[in-house]
Amino acid sequence: MNDHPSKALASFAANLQFDSIPEPVLLRAADLFVDWFGSALAGKGARAVETIDWFAQQMGPATGTSEVLISRRQTSPLFAAMVNAASSHFAEQDDVHNGSVFHPATVVFPAVLAVAQSIGCSGRDILTAVVAGYEVGIRIGEFLGRSHYKVFHTTGTAGTVAAAAAVGRLLQLSPDQMLHAFGSAGTQAAGLWEFLRDAADSKQLHAAKAASDGLMAAYLAQQGFTGAQHILEGPQGMAAGMSSDADPDKLVDRLGERWTLAETSFKFHSSCRHTHPAADALLEVIKKHNLDPEEIARVTTYVHQGAIDVLGPVVNPQTVHQAKFSMGIVLGLIAQFRVAGLSEFEGYFNDSRVVAFSKKVQMVLDAEVDSAYPARWIGKVTVETTDGRLLSGRVDEPKGDPGNTLSRVELEQKALRLAAFSNAATPSEMQAIFEKIWHLAECNKIASFLAISSV
Amino acid sequence: MNDHPSKALASFAANLQFDSIPEPVLLRAADLFVDWFGSALAGKGARAVETIDWFAQQMGPATGTSEVLISRRQTSPLFAAMVNAASSHFAEQDDVHNGSVFHPATVVFPAVLAVAQSIGCSGRDILTAVVAGYEVGIRIGEFLGRSHYKVFHTTGTAGTVAAAAAVGRLLQLSPDQMLHAFGSAGTQAAGLWEFLRDAADSKQLHAAKAASDGLMAAYLAQQGFTGAQHILEGPQGMAAGMSSDADPDKLVDRLGERWTLAETSFKFHSSCRHTHPAADALLEVIKKHNLDPEEIARVTTYVHQGAIDVLGPVVNPQTVHQAKFSMGIVLGLIAQFRVAGLSEFEGYFNDSRVVAFSKKVQMVLDAEVDSAYPARWIGKVTVETTDGRLLSGRVDEPKGDPGNTLSRVELEQKALRLAAFSNAATPSEMQAIFEKIWHLAECNKIASFLAISSV
Repeated sequence: MNDHPSKALASFAANLQFDSIPEPVLLRAADLFVDWFGSALAGKGARAVETIDWFAQQMGPATGTSEVLISRRQTSPLFAAMVNAASSHFAEQDDVHNGSVFHPATVVFPAVLAVAQSIGCSGRDILTAVVAGYEVGIRIGEFLGRSHYKVFHTTGTAGTVAAAAAVGRLLQLSPDQMLHAFGSAGTQAAGLWEFLRDAADSKQLHAAKAASDGLMAAYLAQQGFTGAQHILEGPQGMAAGMSSDADPDKLVDRLGERWTLAETSFKFHSSCRHTHPAADALLEVIKKHNLDPEEIARVTTYVHQGAIDVLGPVVNPQTVHQAKFSMGIVLGLIAQFRVAGLSEFEGYFNDSRVVAFSKKVQMVLDAEVDSAYPARWIGKVTVETTDGRLLSGRVDEPKGDPGNTLSRVELEQKALRLAAFSNAATPSEMQAIFEKIWHLAECNKIASFLAISSV
Repeated sequence: MNDHPSKALASFAANLQFDSIPEPVLLRAADLFVDWFGSALAGKGARAVETIDWFAQQMGPATGTSEVLISRRQTSPLFAAMVNAASSHFAEQDDVHNGSVFHPATVVFPAVLAVAQSIGCSGRDILTAVVAGYEVGIRIGEFLGRSHYKVFHTTGTAGTVAAAAAVGRLLQLSPDQMLHAFGSAGTQAAGLWEFLRDAADSKQLHAAKAASDGLMAAYLAQQGFTGAQHILEGPQGMAAGMSSDADPDKLVDRLGERWTLAETSFKFHSSCRHTHPAADALLEVIKKHNLDPEEIARVTTYVHQGAIDVLGPVVNPQTVHQAKFSMGIVLGLIAQFRVAGLSEFEGYFNDSRVVAFSKKVQMVLDAEVDSAYPARWIGKVTVETTDGRLLSGRVDEPKGDPGNTLSRVELEQKALRLAAFSNAATPSEMQAIFEKIWHLAECNKIASFLAISSV
């Protein structure tokens, strides 16, 4: 009896079969895996990520079955998931689902990879678990609504349950066990946006903890540990505590018919997703009129309230990470280089020309953009030129969205750039990884990608 | 500059010196340590606790410096803190601070003990860290207010920051590092009451995660990992997300003058603290009039709203743990045995006489009791006898509160009963533990209490 939303969603995740997942969804899952892999490698050398890896080394076993991608060592699944999750949420290049404002890859893939390597899963098991994690996490993000996202980092909160669902599917939990796993995951769900004002390191911590806490919830459930039955929609559950506009119907929206994984967007720019629609719209104007930055007197971006909530507090970014949440700096890089990638951020986020340009940018709440959000992320800008022209640009789907997606060649190029940026893997190693992932469904037992086995 | 509450509280914790703590507070800290030790041992054999220990064995190192009390093995501080915290929150006998409705011992002592054994601290270091943890956690619980406690388990939320403060003090964090530790702890803070309706295992999970997550936050801060500067009172911080009546003044209430640790209550009955005032008041009536349970026709307890919120949903308790949250069952045990200890719960929570008595009990919201709460937990009952008498009882401080506290002999007896209940330590082992703790301030380097060293 799937007589309430938490139970229906848990049963869906527990019962999901590889053969019932449409082929395009499976292909997209492999695309997302390749895209995630690049992000996971890009975090190598980043202080926040390396500090979490240091902690994992202090507290976790020195050997194990599951690989830490940035260091190529092996440890227990808990710590591999923790470090790989932190790492893949560093470069702000991991995927995002627009409607839920949730980054699924950075919590789902680390948990799945770590556990799959530990218990020896097939590629089909892995793809099934990944789809379960995405479908659960995205629906919970949509359910928790905009009020939740104003204060809570959905990737930390919904992400904990997503990781539990994915690991629970790998561990072949029964529907009842899966519901207990949801209960233990949801009651650990956390992550506050407060860190953003101080450019603090919490974003990586949120991903790390969502992946590892969700993993813990699933392992505990397998052993009979019980959790709340209505953790999502109950009167003292997640929504009761952390949302004022939750909609339980979203939890079970067309389960088995609508595949939210295929709605997920790849990130093209190296910045917070809230900046992408405006960046693409500005790029359109710049290219069409072949504008130099010096010709631009003012840029007005017409945005949704969520963009103002997240980006508004970032006024004088002092770090690369903070700059990725500055609409002004992002548009300054676009104006200067016509691209806002990792290298542009590292080299120029505090360049005087870019900073000067950032002062010309303002955000304005727009009724059309706001009402379309979060289902659609419309980009609208007006540009005033120094010679008095008023130019406007608009994109209805930013680059990387399902209707404007990246090809497998573009995904490989992006992953190669990310791996090269952090010096975490050679191009030939990356090619071997791509081959494995494109043929994942044929793999009988997943092995290490980069680690030299400690066994 | 302690220019905002999060910073002032973090600076207080970082700067706290043993010599500045009044002697009665230090003596009470040792009392609380002995009291905690009994609770930590009482969880041995409990399914939920043993399952968390199983997970710790799967994911953590098989050797280490820090002892798991219920199994006498050693592992890394993270997992020792996790298991000891789960264990000490099982029997519902650990201490509670009334004003904050927060159980400090179950999160502070496990984190402190695990880290102190790892880095080799003195007894004075330990006592100082414990006081730091209590003072921080209790003030955060008071700050988050009653609206928070309606949905969130304060021991899970405030407890995470309390553990970070205690471990941070042991690690000798600077005030700036301590503030970062608060940021990383607060953004992980979680724990929802939803599990209570289903008698699920989450209460032990909340304690386990608060202790281990707070520990992680402090270790990360020591290595330069940054956190939000205003995690407690900021516009996207803990109170913004999880409270509607937060009062920042509570965070810094008479720091260094008021010692909230000394306000903490010992639990005498083996049940949720919300049942204790009524249990003591009923016991007073029963003793005064020498009543048998059969002579009682009806009991009305006059309670605060928080008691109704937490106990109200528990209508037909199916497990010992759930019975500890049933006002009817608790009063039934009191009426039957004049005591509601672990043995009475284990043997009689579903005894037909006790269940029948529980149906005679009702809770009524009382204006006087509610307005005194949470500073004072007044117990008021009226008892209708079968022969038509209307008797009333009242206690202004339930047994175990600071004005009605337990002596060191009573504390030792309670700890001996708890250790004997779970068969976790012999009376002579317990006597040796008591000796060590009563002389803790003279100890130069803490060693294991029960573990056989794996080194």
